Amino acid sequence: MDLIESLKIKNNTKLLLIVLDGLGGLPVDNGRTELELAHTPNLDKLAKVSALGMHIPVDYGITPGSGPGHLGIFGYDPIKYQIGRGILEALGLGLEVKDTDIAVRGNYATVEESNGRIIVKDRRAGRISTEENIRLTQKLSSAIKSIGDVQVILSPGMEHRFAMILRFPEPLPEGSDDLPDTDPQKEGLEPILPQGEGVAKVVREFLSKAREVLKDEPRANYVLLRGFSKKPKIESFEERFGLRACAIAVYPMYRGLASLVGMEVYKAESLKDQINLLKDLWEEYDYFFFHIKKTDSYGEDGNWKGKVQVIEEFDSLLPEFLSLKPHVLVITGDHSTPSVLRGHSWHPVPVLLHSPYVLGGTSQRFTERECLKGELGIFPAKKLINLMLAHALRLSKFGA
Amino acid sequence: MDLIESLKIKNNTKLLLIVLDGLGGLPVDNGRTELELAHTPNLDKLAKVSALGMHIPVDYGITPGSGPGHLGIFGYDPIKYQIGRGILEALGLGLEVKDTDIAVRGNYATVEESNGRIIVKDRRAGRISTEENIRLTQKLSSAIKSIGDVQVILSPGMEHRFAMILRFPEPLPEGSDDLPDTDPQKEGLEPILPQGEGVAKVVREFLSKAREVLKDEPRANYVLLRGFSKKPKIESFEERFGLRACAIAVYPMYRGLASLVGMEVYKAESLKDQINLLKDLWEEYDYFFFHIKKTDSYGEDGNWKGKVQVIEEFDSLLPEFLSLKPHVLVITGDHSTPSVLRGHSWHPVPVLLHSPYVLGGTSQRFTERECLKGELGIFPAKKLINLMLAHALRLSKFGA
Repeated sequence: MDLIESLKIKNNTKLLLIVLDGLGGLPVDNGRTELELAHTPNLDKLAKVSALGMHIPVDYGITPGSGPGHLGIFGYDPIKYQIGRGILEALGLGLEVKDTDIAVRGNYATVEESNGRIIVKDRRAGRISTEENIRLTQKLSSAIKSIGDVQVILSPGMEHRFAMILRFPEPLPEGSDDLPDTDPQKEGLEPILPQGEGVAKVVREFLSKAREVLKDEPRANYVLLRGFSKKPKIESFEERFGLRACAIAVYPMYRGLASLVGMEVYKAESLKDQINLLKDLWEEYDYFFFHIKKTDSYGEDGNWKGKVQVIEEFDSLLPEFLSLKPHVLVITGDHSTPSVLRGHSWHPVPVLLHSPYVLGGTSQRFTERECLKGELGIFPAKKLINLMLAHALRLSKFGA
Repeated sequence: MDLIESLKIKNNTKLLLIVLDGLGGLPVDNGRTELELAHTPNLDKLAKVSALGMHIPVDYGITPGSGPGHLGIFGYDPIKYQIGRGILEALGLGLEVKDTDIAVRGNYATVEESNGRIIVKDRRAGRISTEENIRLTQKLSSAIKSIGDVQVILSPGMEHRFAMILRFPEPLPEGSDDLPDTDPQKEGLEPILPQGEGVAKVVREFLSKAREVLKDEPRANYVLLRGFSKKPKIESFEERFGLRACAIAVYPMYRGLASLVGMEVYKAESLKDQINLLKDLWEEYDYFFFHIKKTDSYGEDGNWKGKVQVIEEFDSLLPEFLSLKPHVLVITGDHSTPSVLRGHSWHPVPVLLHSPYVLGGTSQRFTERECLKGELGIFPAKKLINLMLAHALRLSKFGA
């Protein structure tokens, strides 16, 4: 039990964490960042009376994926709690993961048989279309519902990608997420079959059945598997912080990440829809994780104008959040996604924390440069929950 | 031995740490904090040529008690070195604690006997007056000077509270601070008698004798004991940092905390008196811990005008400190006590460090917002000693 956990107390405060995915940026136009270019009268006003700063998602210079990015701002050390690739893929495709699951990422592939040996000709089956993928995954799903007493759950992704869950009866066999990838990484080689009993045996049987089902497909006649992983053991949000927490997100990956720390998850179709859900759920929870995806998507596309637009749309909706009068409101990102880099980056992420107990008055706007002047300084993302709990008066004094 | 300890060197520099208890604040009037409202011409002048910053006493979001608050600025990790409740109470009431002591907090209580069972009727004996407490404690003290070869030392506190030290002959019995509280926490229950030999047996005998002595008191006819603890094992200040150190404080708690790290302690009756002592002792020590209490007391009362006044009084006396020409002068708090919160808080604490080797010129005043602009940034309190030693040229180079 760490210090925070030992000091937590309960009260009736509401904590709202709004994550604009990939929020942080770099200069894109005339030396100004996306946040600086956006017209944000509501954020500007709030920034003037809030505690500002920057968080470092994982460590100096480390570019986080979505998993570590979110674990950090949820208050979990992202280096201590690592989420396997298979688990993340499964969550991203909307699959629920349980304690006895092995999750894995799959590729449809093209293979040739010669002298009884299987040789990989194309590791991505010519990048088949997503529609083709959906058809194939349905075909596999109906043909292979289980291997012995292990349930097989498949979900199609984009192009040649899919996720698979092998759901074991309790308990999961030992060392079961230690399997090597079956993907040989190079064309012209044989797939690598895992050796041994337990999960390995189930995987070999699945591969043999899948080969049988897909045999006559012109391109996607086999599957390659990577990133075998099990659900990480993470103490729940309520247990650690004493908060009944929920997540409201459009994209499955973020609901999945929230579910890993025990938040209850709610699906919405749009930002408007999310806000309505937030209002409906307001009395039921203590802590709300509200995820907005598009800032990251446009950043990844290098479309800074799109990113600016999403920030402005959020700004126009800010009064709706404020009308709920959260005791502690935090607006931040899980990492930076500067449009100029067209991807996630290591740069610290702007943070705005509003509560009755801030100094305020340090900054004019909610931008990277103005946040650097703020009272929170540059701090590790995993400490954000400490600050949120403190400002909600949910931590007792340490020592007499 | 940690890095600092291995690098320490000696010279003739004087280091002065002035602690304005609970110094940090939040806006109280027209957006301004207590430090911002105070008229402080001397501090302003000094701030312009000093290194400024903010320290975090324990960790982000953690509100420290006086113990952890002071250990941090003394250079000891307040999470590693925890001070038991009994020890702190004893120090606060001016008792000296030794290595073979068990210290404990006591309450006078009202009990009833029925069928040989003792039942707690009032855990605070109707909150008797402090005068009554003094009378009772004298009565107990003269009746119970020792239990076997264990010396019993009592000191009255406010209302129903007192502190007790059981001073054992060397060595202290094993596991001796692991005793449960005798206070059942609820009226209508029996007190909990500790089981076993060693300290437990001494405590049972003390309780039985105390019951005998207090039997005919109308209200305070028994005692409840809480927070059994022994003196924490802390390496001395001189051993770690090579500094002959002393503490000059009006309140016993702060002299007590300083004594835990091996500082010699001096009692004063007023701020003026403290300054005279400081001057008298100037040649005798290397490091001076100078404690000013009232900033915290007024903060706790929500009396921001009082807090402003204490800051102004200190400012008017600043030239007296400067006339001693300390090589390194630090002015800070052990934690924040914002008047709006009427208690200790987790907010970072302003720090001013003056030496010939600062950058300076970053800030106009010694306030929370101006300290945020300073060259020290936001840093952990336990690193303050590193900075003080460095500025005193008391640390050798690390590595070749």
